[in-house]
Amino acid sequence: MDNLKEYIIEKGQKAKLAARVLSTLDTDSKNKALHAMAKALEENMKSIIDANSIDMKNGEEKGLSKSMLDRLLINEKRILDMSEGLTQVSKLPDPIGEITKMWKRPNGLTIGEKRVPLGVIGIIYEARPNVTVDAAALCLKSGNAVILRGGSEAINTNKVVANLLSGACKECGLPEGTVQLIETTDREAVNIMLKLNEYIDVLIPRGGRGLIQTVVKNATVPVIETGVGNCHIFVDESADLKMAEDIIINAKVQRPAVCNAMESLLVHEKIAEKFLPIIAASLSKLGVELRVCDEGKKIIMDSIKDEEILKHIVDATSEDWDTEFLDLILSVKVVPSLDAALDHIYKHGTKHSEAIITESYSNSQRFLNEVDAAAVYVNASTRFTDGFEYGFGAEIGISTQKLHARGPMGLQQLTTTKYIVYGNGQIRK
Amino acid sequence: MDNLKEYIIEKGQKAKLAARVLSTLDTDSKNKALHAMAKALEENMKSIIDANSIDMKNGEEKGLSKSMLDRLLINEKRILDMSEGLTQVSKLPDPIGEITKMWKRPNGLTIGEKRVPLGVIGIIYEARPNVTVDAAALCLKSGNAVILRGGSEAINTNKVVANLLSGACKECGLPEGTVQLIETTDREAVNIMLKLNEYIDVLIPRGGRGLIQTVVKNATVPVIETGVGNCHIFVDESADLKMAEDIIINAKVQRPAVCNAMESLLVHEKIAEKFLPIIAASLSKLGVELRVCDEGKKIIMDSIKDEEILKHIVDATSEDWDTEFLDLILSVKVVPSLDAALDHIYKHGTKHSEAIITESYSNSQRFLNEVDAAAVYVNASTRFTDGFEYGFGAEIGISTQKLHARGPMGLQQLTTTKYIVYGNGQIRK
Repeated sequence: MDNLKEYIIEKGQKAKLAARVLSTLDTDSKNKALHAMAKALEENMKSIIDANSIDMKNGEEKGLSKSMLDRLLINEKRILDMSEGLTQVSKLPDPIGEITKMWKRPNGLTIGEKRVPLGVIGIIYEARPNVTVDAAALCLKSGNAVILRGGSEAINTNKVVANLLSGACKECGLPEGTVQLIETTDREAVNIMLKLNEYIDVLIPRGGRGLIQTVVKNATVPVIETGVGNCHIFVDESADLKMAEDIIINAKVQRPAVCNAMESLLVHEKIAEKFLPIIAASLSKLGVELRVCDEGKKIIMDSIKDEEILKHIVDATSEDWDTEFLDLILSVKVVPSLDAALDHIYKHGTKHSEAIITESYSNSQRFLNEVDAAAVYVNASTRFTDGFEYGFGAEIGISTQKLHARGPMGLQQLTTTKYIVYGNGQIRK
Repeated sequence: MDNLKEYIIEKGQKAKLAARVLSTLDTDSKNKALHAMAKALEENMKSIIDANSIDMKNGEEKGLSKSMLDRLLINEKRILDMSEGLTQVSKLPDPIGEITKMWKRPNGLTIGEKRVPLGVIGIIYEARPNVTVDAAALCLKSGNAVILRGGSEAINTNKVVANLLSGACKECGLPEGTVQLIETTDREAVNIMLKLNEYIDVLIPRGGRGLIQTVVKNATVPVIETGVGNCHIFVDESADLKMAEDIIINAKVQRPAVCNAMESLLVHEKIAEKFLPIIAASLSKLGVELRVCDEGKKIIMDSIKDEEILKHIVDATSEDWDTEFLDLILSVKVVPSLDAALDHIYKHGTKHSEAIITESYSNSQRFLNEVDAAAVYVNASTRFTDGFEYGFGAEIGISTQKLHARGPMGLQQLTTTKYIVYGNGQIRK
């Protein structure tokens, strides 16, 4: 594209103008637009699916993996899901305008903290076209304008979908810049967005580590970092081992490719002889490869003779402790104490989700207090770190940074506050 | 300094270790350290003043301005003020450990949001050595380790002060990395800090626009932007003109060099003929230069003949609307309506502090709703945007960004949250 920078700046200008209107828009108007967006998707299934089939064909030719192609695929069922998602967002409470607190000062000034939109949000994401719809819905409901930059694999689908969403907004009288897609696959477009401080208030990258690091390292626009989760589960000596087994299987196997899946198992040495053979047998049957420390491997080898299981047991390398496998692979380490587990998590954790399985009150409290992560669990699966599971009704991503938002982000995390101050002539002494 | 990078990384490592200890430190231990810090300053006044006199001498030789030299100066009174500040911070409630909310999910999971420290905070600041003490106190009380990088003009004072603070912490059994100063004036040290993501969780720049922009544009560590305030006061047609005059004088003259001082006056055309001559006379008597739009200047020239006043009236240039003068200079514009005032603020404001003087209920509400700024005032001075004035008991700076913190930042803004989740075996379906 010629004049790429001008093209992006124009989007930025339109978004900024739209944000000013959206910031004071009433809830009914936002919900009406969400319903119109849902209707537009349902009434134009054919054009979405046609566009998607071009993306699918290109993807096959490019040799995308089966799982990538599956994430790219749009069919009637998935369009209905997206439409249902829009309706769901319309039912969520509007976060904007809430006075989160209000107090009076001795001089009579009354100061209130009011929830307001962030302004213009840039979302940079990969592959899945449903993010286009999700992100647009959540940004609109929270009174923000959004600039979407999806993955090149989904460009044809995204163009059609974004046009439908944008058209529905326009129909409802919302400004042109409410929902916009960067309609080019030129990678330089991302670099321009990263430095568009004048027009974009916040950037949220959603995707793999490479994308997120590119954004974090190069953006001058404030970023909410999402994603990487090297999540541990520590099985304490007092753990209910059946509970531990169920939770570990859930956390590792239910959906291994997501950031809240478990990547590393720490087992207290006092129960390692009893527990490791059990968990090694269950996980290997589910196709999980275990990368085990020397001590743990010895325990497993001493007690298991079944070759079908043993072929899933390999030696852990030092890199394994820092690897987010996102696959049916688990690193396993025997630790001498809770302190050793805390040290290991401190050293290798990514501050995403960490869990302890224990019946010890004191150890549960120490784990909750001392582990520095977005979400810390006692006797539950790390897989719960999710906006829907937390009851937020939505999720735009999971923040792994400490500023602004930490953990699952729903509508509220797409807002900021301003102070509104009521005076009657006060001056500062 | 040779090996500057290693030197800074070592500070980062020590800070990170300290942060882990500080995150679970009880309130009493933190307060004890704050008292020890206060005592150390009071007992070592001579060495602080001696070091300061070197900085003062160097500053005079370098030709620093009188106001710069005044900000650099440390005397017994100022040391007692710093010590008193430490005692005040010890009396503030400890923000850490608060459970801000807690709820139960249908599956029985109990999810709590708990306030925890940010970790390691980097403060990059200019001139005034009292920031060294303030920042150390607030970071410690909020459970954070701090790495301080002060201005080169104050390096000798800062070294002595930081050593005293750090020594007091050590005496109280706190880790070595609790309070650290970068003890070199090499500017490259800042560049290294800006990219020290592994060790620094948040950077807060405090100082002039140049410093802040350098940090915002170059940091990969998350930044809280502070500072620039092109603050407006709009005098509506229904304003109580005596109140308007008092507030404008306060906002412009009481302390013109700070970010919440007023920089631009907007006057509704319906009261311009009455009000402009009044305010021009009062402000000019206080030494304020008025840079006035054509319409406003004509009104003033038509009604005032006193040369003493008129010599303070000059033509506004288009740059004046975007200038933070930080001096006894005010831009003045006549506007035809509230809408025009809102448009002007939208276009030229820096989203810091904005005020309307009005007796109209509807206009006050529209101004509060529609102006996008950290603090929006009705019938009060913009000078109130301040952590102490808001009742926070402290202030680390005034955030002008939308992420994480907006407006005056006290102890709470130096914290983040984590989710603590109590389960009894839950797995995700």
